[in-house]
Amino acid sequence: MIIVMKHSATAEDIGNVVQHIESLGFKAHLSQGEERTIIGVIGDERPVEPEHFELLDGVERAVRILHPFKLASRDFHPEDSVVKINGVSIGGRQVILMAGPCSVESREQLIETAAAVKAAGAHVLRGGAWKPRTSPYAFQGLGLKGLELLREAHDAFQLPIVTEVMSPQEVTLVAQYADILQVGARNMQNFALLAAVGEIQKPVLLKRGLMSTVEELLMAAEYILSHGNQKVILCERGIRTFETSTRNTFDINAIPVLKSLTHLPVIADPSHGTGKWELVTPIARAAVAAGADGLIVEVHPNPAKALSDGAQSLKPDNFARLVSDVRRVAEAIGRTA
Amino acid sequence: MIIVMKHSATAEDIGNVVQHIESLGFKAHLSQGEERTIIGVIGDERPVEPEHFELLDGVERAVRILHPFKLASRDFHPEDSVVKINGVSIGGRQVILMAGPCSVESREQLIETAAAVKAAGAHVLRGGAWKPRTSPYAFQGLGLKGLELLREAHDAFQLPIVTEVMSPQEVTLVAQYADILQVGARNMQNFALLAAVGEIQKPVLLKRGLMSTVEELLMAAEYILSHGNQKVILCERGIRTFETSTRNTFDINAIPVLKSLTHLPVIADPSHGTGKWELVTPIARAAVAAGADGLIVEVHPNPAKALSDGAQSLKPDNFARLVSDVRRVAEAIGRTA
Amino acid sequence: MIIVMKHSATAEDIGNVVQHIESLGFKAHLSQGEERTIIGVIGDERPVEPEHFELLDGVERAVRILHPFKLASRDFHPEDSVVKINGVSIGGRQVILMAGPCSVESREQLIETAAAVKAAGAHVLRGGAWKPRTSPYAFQGLGLKGLELLREAHDAFQLPIVTEVMSPQEVTLVAQYADILQVGARNMQNFALLAAVGEIQKPVLLKRGLMSTVEELLMAAEYILSHGNQKVILCERGIRTFETSTRNTFDINAIPVLKSLTHLPVIADPSHGTGKWELVTPIARAAVAAGADGLIVEVHPNPAKALSDGAQSLKPDNFARLVSDVRRVAEAIGRTA
Amino acid sequence: MIIVMKHSATAEDIGNVVQHIESLGFKAHLSQGEERTIIGVIGDERPVEPEHFELLDGVERAVRILHPFKLASRDFHPEDSVVKINGVSIGGRQVILMAGPCSVESREQLIETAAAVKAAGAHVLRGGAWKPRTSPYAFQGLGLKGLELLREAHDAFQLPIVTEVMSPQEVTLVAQYADILQVGARNMQNFALLAAVGEIQKPVLLKRGLMSTVEELLMAAEYILSHGNQKVILCERGIRTFETSTRNTFDINAIPVLKSLTHLPVIADPSHGTGKWELVTPIARAAVAAGADGLIVEVHPNPAKALSDGAQSLKPDNFARLVSDVRRVAEAIGRTA
Repeated sequence: MIIVMKHSATAEDIGNVVQHIESLGFKAHLSQGEERTIIGVIGDERPVEPEHFELLDGVERAVRILHPFKLASRDFHPEDSVVKINGVSIGGRQVILMAGPCSVESREQLIETAAAVKAAGAHVLRGGAWKPRTSPYAFQGLGLKGLELLREAHDAFQLPIVTEVMSPQEVTLVAQYADILQVGARNMQNFALLAAVGEIQKPVLLKRGLMSTVEELLMAAEYILSHGNQKVILCERGIRTFETSTRNTFDINAIPVLKSLTHLPVIADPSHGTGKWELVTPIARAAVAAGADGLIVEVHPNPAKALSDGAQSLKPDNFARLVSDVRRVAEAIGRTA
Repeated sequence: MIIVMKHSATAEDIGNVVQHIESLGFKAHLSQGEERTIIGVIGDERPVEPEHFELLDGVERAVRILHPFKLASRDFHPEDSVVKINGVSIGGRQVILMAGPCSVESREQLIETAAAVKAAGAHVLRGGAWKPRTSPYAFQGLGLKGLELLREAHDAFQLPIVTEVMSPQEVTLVAQYADILQVGARNMQNFALLAAVGEIQKPVLLKRGLMSTVEELLMAAEYILSHGNQKVILCERGIRTFETSTRNTFDINAIPVLKSLTHLPVIADPSHGTGKWELVTPIARAAVAAGADGLIVEVHPNPAKALSDGAQSLKPDNFARLVSDVRRVAEAIGRTA
Repeated sequence: MIIVMKHSATAEDIGNVVQHIESLGFKAHLSQGEERTIIGVIGDERPVEPEHFELLDGVERAVRILHPFKLASRDFHPEDSVVKINGVSIGGRQVILMAGPCSVESREQLIETAAAVKAAGAHVLRGGAWKPRTSPYAFQGLGLKGLELLREAHDAFQLPIVTEVMSPQEVTLVAQYADILQVGARNMQNFALLAAVGEIQKPVLLKRGLMSTVEELLMAAEYILSHGNQKVILCERGIRTFETSTRNTFDINAIPVLKSLTHLPVIADPSHGTGKWELVTPIARAAVAAGADGLIVEVHPNPAKALSDGAQSLKPDNFARLVSDVRRVAEAIGRTA
Repeated sequence: MIIVMKHSATAEDIGNVVQHIESLGFKAHLSQGEERTIIGVIGDERPVEPEHFELLDGVERAVRILHPFKLASRDFHPEDSVVKINGVSIGGRQVILMAGPCSVESREQLIETAAAVKAAGAHVLRGGAWKPRTSPYAFQGLGLKGLELLREAHDAFQLPIVTEVMSPQEVTLVAQYADILQVGARNMQNFALLAAVGEIQKPVLLKRGLMSTVEELLMAAEYILSHGNQKVILCERGIRTFETSTRNTFDINAIPVLKSLTHLPVIADPSHGTGKWELVTPIARAAVAAGADGLIVEVHPNPAKALSDGAQSLKPDNFARLVSDVRRVAEAIGRTA
């Protein structure tokens, strides 16, 4: 931490800040500039928030030096982490394709979709059993029945399953049916949930909150990692901005930024990242071109009848074209898909 | 809902959209403009998302006509709702002042703060027992011990207690100790939690998510209302924007906007809305001048020693000055405090 | 400037950074932390951008210590600046009220509005002669004719005139008619225009860009000040955020933040800050309660017939109520209006 | 335009709105829903702003049906426009590469860069003669001398020149030296400048403002087109969001969105879109994968000595690798580069 004193700070103010730093077990290091005194805080600053120092008399502001995350950082884990599930490796040379319906709606819908995405080349089947919906009047998912159908599809097509878990008390149940547990964007800072999925040993797909910075995403991963679960996959899915022509703004920059800051695999969700099916394929290609380790894509046999997210779901034939496009882009940058 | 057809839409496209509208139980109403055909969807559109129609061939976009919330709307409940707790009325002529520490840290800290805010004129005591923290390495709250201390302070000072509940399974427990249950900004769209606080009959203080629209805040309130609990108090606490000179951007516009859209009481949190104690008093005055029904303010006897949010906590003497300022502003607009 | 070296930086990297710092005429000051080396840049860093250092090998990031503005800063000019125009003092104890139509549309419209705002208590008359419009098909203003009408209104009502200037070559012309030259939000970083209004000696009303930070606003003021014109009045007029229920988000926090960083007067524009006439009065009250030195408000005798910004214009009787409200709030905080 | 009446609107309110619509030369079309009356405005609504209707008594809101731009729209110009300059076609099958220094600093710097980018495969040379700088204390460009050096480089390497023009009165001068005139992000809504470049017949590269929506970018293009210049090239260069790990957030979604809304060519600026040279190549690949018709990239022989934008400038060897990467991605999607 670096503490910048005000232009008007007195020697007494500086002395008090030094004393406060030392009372917390850090060492203080003074540097006298031409217009400001700067005080370095020497030690592991991660547990302390910069704001903590800003209310001392004479302090203008405090600036963090270290990233607040440690287990997620490449500093101490320079090589890529690869998460393995039943022969699928996420974070390696191959770009992994996850696909399936937003919500599990019925056996027919799920089996038809699973067959189609398998045939097109998907490696993992997605599908929601409980759905977080903005409106209390909208379809909320099949619940346990949805999990059972996902398991049935897993057995029929040998596709690992990724599905969302929405509260701490459901983690054990969902882990019995799913191969990868998804923490959704709206729950990215549901710290009780992060702790709960940190206690199990199944892979976790952690989606970036639509209002969260890259650093906050990595802090959410740190929660899971610090509870003992090292199998974390990050997912960029679009952020909220002033632009209204798309549902979200897919933050393509976040992909190479995350790859440089963390060893964890990073995948992309072009369905939520755009909110419109016509945009899914170009943004899927872009995400892979930028270095994403995988994609998660919504596919529905009849989007107009979908009970959720129809507007951003691809029909099976469009998904097959996406896979073909993405493979060529992956090969152009020395990967496979 | 209004459906705008593309310039290139065919008669067949239009026919299909009409058929789709009718299959959902609505009536369709065509209007032929000079460059576009527009189709009105007649009926209660609230459960349907506009995106649902946007994937039909020939549709350019769909626009909601009704606000998606109903119970929270003034349309069907024009007069103000007043939430009453032990003689305190929130949403009436008096501006209600809630104050206390961010986290309950110890009996001494809580009692000292409670005594001070009571003396200064606060009507409700706030304090956190469980704290949502961005870092897994930061202080997470005293938990149950914190609730017990809050109850003790309640009894000592006859101040109703507001405290945060973070997961559905803790609602019953927290409701035994608290007079008002707070749903925090990060949980504004934790739908399981909204449902759970909707099942009880204690007042709920619902904070706006830091990247949630006014409409989403009202939809979150709708979750609680539709589960049977009518005692909902809304709270503006700042949103996330590009501006970095303050922790959040306090959305002062939201106060009169909410007051016009909903009958529910609206209070303001200038502590989180600014993140800096020097700004708390001017923004508290502004919120009351804009029509807020109350304030919730962080106060700590020694902010530099606070285990959380010290930078935005007022010392007791500054809080007393805030109360004095706010009273004069309230009177200037025909209210009391 | 503080330069944070990467965890992996070598001694050679550090040596090169030190050499680079010295080649720019600064002194370097090393501080060895537990996980990072930090290098302080001693000297007036203002002309250098932090990014300049970030491309040197081994550098993680560079952090500015000093605010990049100097003439606008309270550091070297602690007392408030007061801008005086024909007996009106902006930045003193009195809250100054500027009001008038968005665009000058005709003599009748302008004279009727001027008479009304004068009667209600306004101190300055506003009105646009050239209008920046998003659409090339919208009314673009009366131009020179508008300036002449403004001067006529000035003479008739003894109200100083504020009007917008949109390009450097019009500065001299506009300065012949106006008492205060306004630089609009879209031109806040039109550096040629800032330089041009910096060369004259008339007061400049500088509006914050709708996506500009407080720091960028102060840098824009610095352009004007550094060209020799010290009569700069800042104006908060709302920023662009994700919220769509209002045209802009009025950044109330910016008022006390600006007042603490700079000695320049700060006024508020609740008309653009909200975009809806119903919200103008509550936000006007709030701005004054937060410490604004004045208001600029759009008033039109018949908003439904206005050629621009009708939706956010007050009718004269509503403006009179605003003045009455604002006076009471100003008195509540020890000012007049 | 669709006008949504309030729940509480009276028959008289509705009558007045209809009368107002007709007084503007439109036809009104009523539709009575279950909870709201809706009034359609039939006619070319483009010159009218929705806010215009929102202040009539009983109106809840007005919604635009048509995009406000016409000449830029694919509705009336379905096929792609191709802008041709000396044998370079922008908007065709080939992805066009523009590269060069941020600022022209000296003959040596420019010639060395031009030689390098030509050798690497660039089709157009970029370079700034006047630079918009946030700080009045930073390097402001060589001015006319810069234009002369650009022309010299043009003649030596047969590379068309793109350079920024910052004010209306410089358009004629810059057009004598440049093959493409750039309107920078900060000037995207400098309407006087848009009109001036609309009067000439040279291609214009119009950069999206960092605060501008896709629709506003198209309205800025409409200004140029409506003044008679049809040779407009759009450029996505990143927008401002809450994310601080990159200088801007490159809006990758905007590329396919623009390609669907307009016939104009769309290129990408990954240098400004990221602000960090390490991110330029992955984002350049992504932009091409998403469908960009070209790239504009900052290259400098010695970024650490650059007088502006060094941090986002590629060295010549890195630019050569970018070209090689981008070519493979272009081929993967059926284009060349």
